[in-house]
Amino acid sequence: MKRRDENTENKVKRRGGSNRSGSYVREDVEQDIPSNLLTGRNPVMEALKKGRGIDKIMIAKGTEGSVVKIAAMASDAGVEVQYVQRSAIDRIAYGLPHQGVAAFVSDYEYSSVDEILDYAEEKNEDPFVVILDGIEDPHNLGAIIRTADAAGAHGIIIQKRRAVSITPVVEKSAAGAAEYVKVARVANITQAITSLQKRGLWIAAVDMDGECCWKTNLSGPIAVVIGSEGRGISRLVKETCDFVVSMPMLGCVNSLNASNAAALVMYEIVRQRTGKT
Amino acid sequence: MKRRDENTENKVKRRGGSNRSGSYVREDVEQDIPSNLLTGRNPVMEALKKGRGIDKIMIAKGTEGSVVKIAAMASDAGVEVQYVQRSAIDRIAYGLPHQGVAAFVSDYEYSSVDEILDYAEEKNEDPFVVILDGIEDPHNLGAIIRTADAAGAHGIIIQKRRAVSITPVVEKSAAGAAEYVKVARVANITQAITSLQKRGLWIAAVDMDGECCWKTNLSGPIAVVIGSEGRGISRLVKETCDFVVSMPMLGCVNSLNASNAAALVMYEIVRQRTGKT
Repeated sequence: MKRRDENTENKVKRRGGSNRSGSYVREDVEQDIPSNLLTGRNPVMEALKKGRGIDKIMIAKGTEGSVVKIAAMASDAGVEVQYVQRSAIDRIAYGLPHQGVAAFVSDYEYSSVDEILDYAEEKNEDPFVVILDGIEDPHNLGAIIRTADAAGAHGIIIQKRRAVSITPVVEKSAAGAAEYVKVARVANITQAITSLQKRGLWIAAVDMDGECCWKTNLSGPIAVVIGSEGRGISRLVKETCDFVVSMPMLGCVNSLNASNAAALVMYEIVRQRTGKT
Repeated sequence: MKRRDENTENKVKRRGGSNRSGSYVREDVEQDIPSNLLTGRNPVMEALKKGRGIDKIMIAKGTEGSVVKIAAMASDAGVEVQYVQRSAIDRIAYGLPHQGVAAFVSDYEYSSVDEILDYAEEKNEDPFVVILDGIEDPHNLGAIIRTADAAGAHGIIIQKRRAVSITPVVEKSAAGAAEYVKVARVANITQAITSLQKRGLWIAAVDMDGECCWKTNLSGPIAVVIGSEGRGISRLVKETCDFVVSMPMLGCVNSLNASNAAALVMYEIVRQRTGKT
C-alpha cells in the first residue's frame, strides 16, 4: 500500500469533481450541497414516476443509457430538461455522485407515524416499522431506506434532533427508495415507542445482548429499533422496548454496521411472515 | 430542509476537522490519508491485540474511556504513545473519523486463496468464502469485512484492479475486523472461481434474478459472489457461477446496497449451517 502522490493543484482541481466510486460525501462538504438537489439516475427516475415536484432536470451532454428514458419521462411530465456540461453538474453536486443527471426537486415530504400505521392497515398487513435511535451516517440511513422498501416495511421513524434527516446524500444512497418509504420524524423516540405499544405493536430492540432473532417470534405487528453507529441504542429507549434481539456473532468483533444489522432483522421479519424456512 | 448557511472561512476551518458523524470520506480526499494510518478505537485496539506492527500511537490529550486501555496495551507491547492535540490527529486523518486515536501501522497483509481454504480446514469447517466482483465503495468493503467476521466466513476474495483495496477508510469502516478476516487479492475473479470449483466449492452469484436464498440449499462448501455497486456482477463471472440466489424484493426499487445484500446471504448461510429455522 503506497501512498499515491498528488500535488496540490491536482487536489484543488479534483475538489468539485465527479466521484467515480460514488457514494460518500464528507459531512463538512455535504453542507454545501443544495438541499433540494437530487442526483443519480434511479433517484431522478423514481421522483418522476412518483410525480414529485421537479423544477428542472439537468443532464450531462453526451450521457447515454437510461437518461434517454429520463428525458422522455420529463417531457411527458412537462418538466424542463437542460443539457449541460458534466462539469456544471459536478460543481452543483459538490462531489455527490450523479451519473450525469441531477434535478431540483420539491422538499422531501415527511409522513406522520399515523400515516405509517394507516398505510399498513390499507395494505391489510400487520404494521412493520423501523425506528432509528440516532443514526448519523447518511449512507447508513439511505441503505436502511432502500432495504426497508425491499423488505416491505411500512415506514421508518427517525429522531428530529441529533440524527441525520433526509438529505441529498441520503436520497442518493437510497437509490430512489426514498420516494416510496414513509419516513416520520419525531421529537422523542421513547414516546413514539410507547404510543406504538398502545397501538398493539411489539417493540424489538436490536442489540448485541439479545436473543437470537431466528429463535424469536417476530411475527405480528412489530417495530424494530436500531441504535446509532457510535453509541448504539440509548438506555432509556432500550428499557422501553419489549424485548431485545441479536444476530449470532461468530467472529472477533462484536457488532455489525447499523444498516447491515437493520437489513438482517428486517429480512428475518419477512422470512417469518412469509413462513419460509 | 433549509440549506445551512456557511461562510468560506468556516468551510476552510472545517476541512481537516473531525467528522462527528463519522464514516465517510470523499474519494478525492481519501487519497491524502497516509496509507499506513489506522484510526479509531476499535481498529487500533484490535491491531494491538493481533500484534500487528505499530510504529506509533497518537492519542488526543484529554480523551477518556477506552483510550486508557489502549495506552496500557501499547505500553505492554512496547509501542510508543504520543499525547497530542486533537487537531494534530485531525490534520493527519484528513477527515477520517478517529475518536481521538490514530496509529501508524505496518502494511495490511493480504492472504492467498489457499490460506483462506487452509484456515477453513484448520477449523474443520466447510469453506465459506465471499467473492467481491469489483466493490468500489470503501465503506461497503469495510462493512462486508465486519459482517464476514461476525458470520464466521473464512475469507474474502477481491479483485486487484478496478476495485477498492484495504485502505485506512476500509479499516475504519471494518471497526477492527480487518485484523481477523483474511482478504486475498486476485488478478482474475473468473479464474479464482474456477479454481474454487475444482476444490469442491459451490459458487452462488447474488443477483436479483436468482432463486430465493431461503429456498436454496446453501450448506456445504460455498462461495458467494457480490457484484459492484454500479454494474452488479459482470456477465462472464455470473456465467461461471453454479447458481444465482436473491432476496425477495417486495418494494418498488429492485436492488439492495451491496453490503446489505452480502450480509443477508452470509447470515442465511450461517442459519442453514447451524440448522436454525
